[in-house]
Formats: sequence, structure tokens, C-alpha cells
Amino acid sequence: MDSALGFLLAARQCEIDELEHLALTSDLVTVVARLVHDLQRERGLSNVYLASRGARYVEALHQQVADSVLAQQEIRAQFDALDTAAHRVRNGARLFSRIAYVLYALDSLPALRQQVQAQETKPEEASAGYVRLISGLLNVVFEAADSASDPEISRALVALFHFMQGKEYAGQERAIGSASFASGQIDAPRQQHWQHLIEAQENSLQVFNDFTDPAVRTAWTSVQPGEALHTMERLRRVAAFTSNGGKVDSNALSSWYETCTERIDAMKAIEDLLANHLRQLCVRRIEQARTELRDQQANLNALQQQAVRQDEAPPALLGPHLEREVLGMVQEQSRRLQSMSDELETARAALNERKVIERAKGLLMASRKLSEEDAHKMLRQTAMNQGKRLIDVAKTVLSMSDYL
Amino acid sequence: MDSALGFLLAARQCEIDELEHLALTSDLVTVVARLVHDLQRERGLSNVYLASRGARYVEALHQQVADSVLAQQEIRAQFDALDTAAHRVRNGARLFSRIAYVLYALDSLPALRQQVQAQETKPEEASAGYVRLISGLLNVVFEAADSASDPEISRALVALFHFMQGKEYAGQERAIGSASFASGQIDAPRQQHWQHLIEAQENSLQVFNDFTDPAVRTAWTSVQPGEALHTMERLRRVAAFTSNGGKVDSNALSSWYETCTERIDAMKAIEDLLANHLRQLCVRRIEQARTELRDQQANLNALQQQAVRQDEAPPALLGPHLEREVLGMVQEQSRRLQSMSDELETARAALNERKVIERAKGLLMASRKLSEEDAHKMLRQTAMNQGKRLIDVAKTVLSMSDYL
Repeated sequence: MDSALGFLLAARQCEIDELEHLALTSDLVTVVARLVHDLQRERGLSNVYLASRGARYVEALHQQVADSVLAQQEIRAQFDALDTAAHRVRNGARLFSRIAYVLYALDSLPALRQQVQAQETKPEEASAGYVRLISGLLNVVFEAADSASDPEISRALVALFHFMQGKEYAGQERAIGSASFASGQIDAPRQQHWQHLIEAQENSLQVFNDFTDPAVRTAWTSVQPGEALHTMERLRRVAAFTSNGGKVDSNALSSWYETCTERIDAMKAIEDLLANHLRQLCVRRIEQARTELRDQQANLNALQQQAVRQDEAPPALLGPHLEREVLGMVQEQSRRLQSMSDELETARAALNERKVIERAKGLLMASRKLSEEDAHKMLRQTAMNQGKRLIDVAKTVLSMSDYL
Repeated sequence: MDSALGFLLAARQCEIDELEHLALTSDLVTVVARLVHDLQRERGLSNVYLASRGARYVEALHQQVADSVLAQQEIRAQFDALDTAAHRVRNGARLFSRIAYVLYALDSLPALRQQVQAQETKPEEASAGYVRLISGLLNVVFEAADSASDPEISRALVALFHFMQGKEYAGQERAIGSASFASGQIDAPRQQHWQHLIEAQENSLQVFNDFTDPAVRTAWTSVQPGEALHTMERLRRVAAFTSNGGKVDSNALSSWYETCTERIDAMKAIEDLLANHLRQLCVRRIEQARTELRDQQANLNALQQQAVRQDEAPPALLGPHLEREVLGMVQEQSRRLQSMSDELETARAALNERKVIERAKGLLMASRKLSEEDAHKMLRQTAMNQGKRLIDVAKTVLSMSDYL
């Protein structure tokens, strides 16, 4: 085989390797989604348990912790599998750093659970611990989405990441609402944070909607529980229009918690669909790429034999017919890679917003010696005060970097 | 070792792997630069040989072809080395496709040389063959630059790529000038193309200047031959102010060819410096990353032993002191990767201009069934007619994609 052809086939083989790596990452993402869901439930139950001074959801929390521990074991096994396949991991430095943070945060989970159990912490503090861990897990999904080299799979990962992010905002909203109703009052900072969570949720779900498969989009429209949504919107409105420091009906807690939970569980079903779609997509794309490679090889073999029969060229060289064919294949492959790269750019542009916000946070952390949480709070506060979107504030901060 | 620490160290190891891969790619780029230089000389000599109807540079061309053949053998060996290390190649699909094209084009070189030798082709046609092959080789360098994950190395590759691109425009300018002076006349299309080559050259060298090492920048300023530059500018001016179809002094050919060659040879010296700088940089960054990994490991071992001695924790667990240390290291690593990724983005932004032009070309090729050359010519012509930069025309074309 001529060496130009050898490299053409090697390029195809690289694509297959990339796809197989993506399949591995997709499996990881699926397990991450499962653990996130368990931690979200655990956070919600812990919140109500703490806010009700240990009166509610004692047994449910106990059961949930047992489920979470199982999901933790599952993810550790998945991380180990990744470790042994390290040489095949793209974007390894970033992905592994994110995983290191997750493992660190998982190690501190037993202590947090003990504090909750003994009611030695406040709902907000307990929530913050879970939020950090879940945010670390979402970062793992983000890196996976950011390293995907296949446009179709990249779109599926972008959709899944944004759906998970939206679901996490929904979970945080459940927590802030539960804490408010349980305590029987609400103040302005909490109302603002609540509003931020609603908006961030809607933005994330919009990106999901733009990038997901039509079948999943339809499922998402049909699965949303109408009655629960109605109740949720009513309680959102009640909380939003209560004056600063005013009372809210603590009897609404159950209703709030359960409608939110119903919606989040419906989201979990969609998440499962998304993860399923992603897995099938990987299998299909690998199968497709392998078939194309086989066809290409068969085509070339046939051409070469033909060239030899016609004495067009000595066996070691290419005849003019085969040469034209090779040029056609090389050009076709270049065009295909170019168009894949264009599509990929579109899908990844959706991830850039988050990157800009991360960079602005990093700048604030470095220049003002803030923790990540405080940097985020500062950006969010500025966005609220100025009535701007978070991304626009982040861009402004970056453009002012010389002054900071 | 705790698994969080395991992944922290694995992330470092991934960085080292990436750097080693970059060192491999940098070696490849160095060999590509050598072959490009030989092909540029061969093109220049072929041009004068053809334009002078076989009277000039007979022996020099013969000698140059022998040199080029040696460089071809060298690059084939380098490609083979890459093939056997395929599993370590990032961006393999694109890089290998580019290499497939180069190998295809190299296969058609003997036929081109025969045509030149027998004077069965025109200077423009012969040039076009070399231009295509060199453009293919530059694409290999571009993919290498585009896949670099280390910001410092990425900057060095961006500088080298743009310098090589600038040198190639200088080579094409030598060819168009030689053809003009040899034929004793010049027309408007050739004058426009010549002007385009001067501008493209200056743009490329500006990017090189922005991204290169200060030492190389200084060397470039001091190495440019003042007298030759003066002669070159004078002859450029003469050609630019000749009326359409007017005569130019064919006796200026030698002077033009030799001053251009003197300048291009000076550029080769800078290119060698750049390649050298790149190789040293790879070695230094690998050494640095390895030292950091060793230090991190030693640091962790010391902390763990200390924890065990103080009975802070059973050996299998982390003590609180070590735990704080781990969090610090995880956060530090995230910050470092974040800031590397920001720097990388800046370096790669310089490559985007070319990508936009490639995409616009691809769009024209698909929508108007043009060859790559004709698509490029069409963009360039529009830029000339409208007095705009090529990149701006490309952006306009892309924004009008729905109409095409």
C-alpha cells in the first residue's frame, strides 16, 4: 500500500480511536449524572431535616444516604477504569484535575453527613457543601463535553451538560425555597438569589433545547408535570412578592418540596434519555466509522488489483487511474474533516459562555484574593444590581483586567 | 496513596505525555521547514530556467533537485516514525490527512521535474505545482500548531508557522518577479497578485513578530540585509509603476533573483533559530514538568509519613493537615491549568484568521463547485477589487452563506 493511502487510513483509525475514547467518557458522564441526582436528593432531604430541627424525613434521609453511598462506589470504580486507560484519555490534565477535586470532596462527605445527622450545621452551610461537590462533578462533565472531537457527540454532550446544569439550579431552588418555607420567612437577599436561580435554570434549559435531539426535546415538553408546574409557579410568585423579612406560610413547605421533587424526578427521566441517546450515538458513530474504513480499504484493494491487471503500473507504484482516485479521497477526507470542525465549533461555542465566567472569576480570585465562591457571589451581585446578565458582567470584568 | 492524589499526579503525567508528543511534532516541523526551503529554491531556479528557455541555472537546478530529494527522504523517514507512534499523536485525524496529501503531492514531483527539464511547461504552471506541495507542507505545520496544548510551545509554533508562511509568500514573490523580469514585461493582473503577496507577507511576519521570543525578534531585525532590501524595494517599485503591459528591464532579473534569494536565505537562518528555540523549549518544559512531578510526589510522601508518625490518621486515610494540603494542591493545579488555557487561547486566536479563510474557501468550493485554487483566487480578487483585507472578505462570505 502506498504511504499516502496508509496515512489516509491511519487518519480514519485516529477518528475511531477518538470515538472509542468518547464512548468511555460518555459512560463516565452517565455515572456522574446518577451520583449528582442522588446528592441532589440528599441535599434536599438534609435541608428539610435541618430546617425542621430533625422532625421531618428522618427515614427518607437515612435511606437516601445509603443510595448515595452506592452511587459513590460506582463512580470510584468508573474513575479507576479511566485511570488504567489513561493513555487513551484526551484532555487528561484537565479532566484528571477535576476528578482529583471530586475525590477530595467525596472524602469530606462523611463528616458533613455526621454534622447534618447531629444537627450541628445550618441548612445553608450543609447545602453549600453539597453544592461544591455537585459543581465539581458538573466540571467533570464540562471537560468531557469540551474535549469531544465529534460534532454530533459534542452536541449531545453540550445538551446533557446544560440539562444537568439546569437541573442543578432547580435543585438549588428547591433548597432555597424549602429553607424559606420551613423558617416561615423570607428576606431580600434570598429573594434575589432565588430569582438568579430561576433565570440561570431557564438559560441552561434553553441551551439544552437548542442542542438536543428532536425526540428528547419532544419528551421534555410532554413530561413536564402540568399541575406541579402550576403549584411551583404559584409558590415562586408568593415568595417573590413577600416584602423583605416578611412571613411565608410554613405549611407550604411540603407542597413546595414535593412539587419541586416531582419536577426534578421528571428531569431525571429526561437525563436518562439524554445519557441513553449519547451512548447509542457513540455506538452508532463507531460502527459507522468502522464500516467506512472497511469500505475504503476494500475500494483501494480493488483499484490496486485492477491497476496491476491492466499493467498500468508495476505493483509497487500507483497507476494514473488509482492516482486520481487517491487525490479524490484525500480531498474528500479534508472536506469532511473541515466541515466536522465547523460543526464542532458551533457546538463548543455554547461552552464558551461558561469559560468566560470562569476566567472572570479567576481574575477576581487572583486580583482581589477572593475564594471561588466569593468571586462568583460578587459577579452575581453586580449582575443583580445592574440588571445585567452574568456573562455580560464577566466580559466587562475581563475587559477591565488592566485596572484590577 | 489516596485516589485524589493519584489523579492529581496522573494529571501531571498527562501534561508530560502531551509535552513529549509536542517534542515529536516539533521535530517533524523542523524537517518540514527544511524541505520547504529546498522546494522554494527548486521552484525559484526552475522559474528562471524555464523563463530563460533553458539558458540559465542549468547546473544549479540540477544540484538543487539532488538536495531536495535528500530532504524528501528525510521527511518520509519522519512520517514513518510518526506512524509507529500513532497512539501518542493528538489531532491525528487532521494531521494524518494533511500528511496523506503531502505524500500524494510528493509522488507527482518526479513528473513535474521531468516537464521542467524538458521545458514542456510554463513558469506559472511549474510554480503552481510547487505552491500546492508547499501549501500542503505548511498545512502540516498549521495542524501541529493548532493541536499544541502548552501555551509557550503554542506561541513558538504560531511564530514559526507564520514566519514560514511569510517566507513562502517571499518565495512566491521571487517567482512572480523573476517571471516578469525574465519575460521583459508586466501586466495588471500580475501587478495585483504581486501586491497581494507583499501584503500577505507583511501580515504573516507581523504575527511572527507578535508571538516570537525577544531574542529571535532581535536577530530578525539585525539579520535583514540592508542593501539587498533596498534593491528589492526599488525593483518592486519599478514593477508597480510600469503601465499595464509595459516593458521592464530584463537585465534586472539577476539582481532581483539574487537579492530576493539573499533575503530568503537570511529568513532560513531565522527559521533555523526558531526551530532551535522550539526544540529547546520542548526539552526545557518536559524537564520542568518532570521536576515538578517529582517535587509534588516527594512533598506528599513527606506529609503522609508525618501524618502516620503523629497518629493523625490510620495509614490508609489522610490526616486533617494532609487533607488541607491536598485541597491546596488541587486548587493550585486548577488555577494553573485555567491560566494556561487562557494563554493558549490567545496564541491560538492568531490561527483563527486562517481558519476563517479556509471555511470561506470551503463554502465557495461546495456552493459554486470551484477548485480550492479558484476559490482562493475568487476571494483574493474580491479583496483587491473592493480594497478590503482577505479575512474581511472571508467573513462577509461566511455571513452570506444562506444566499450562496
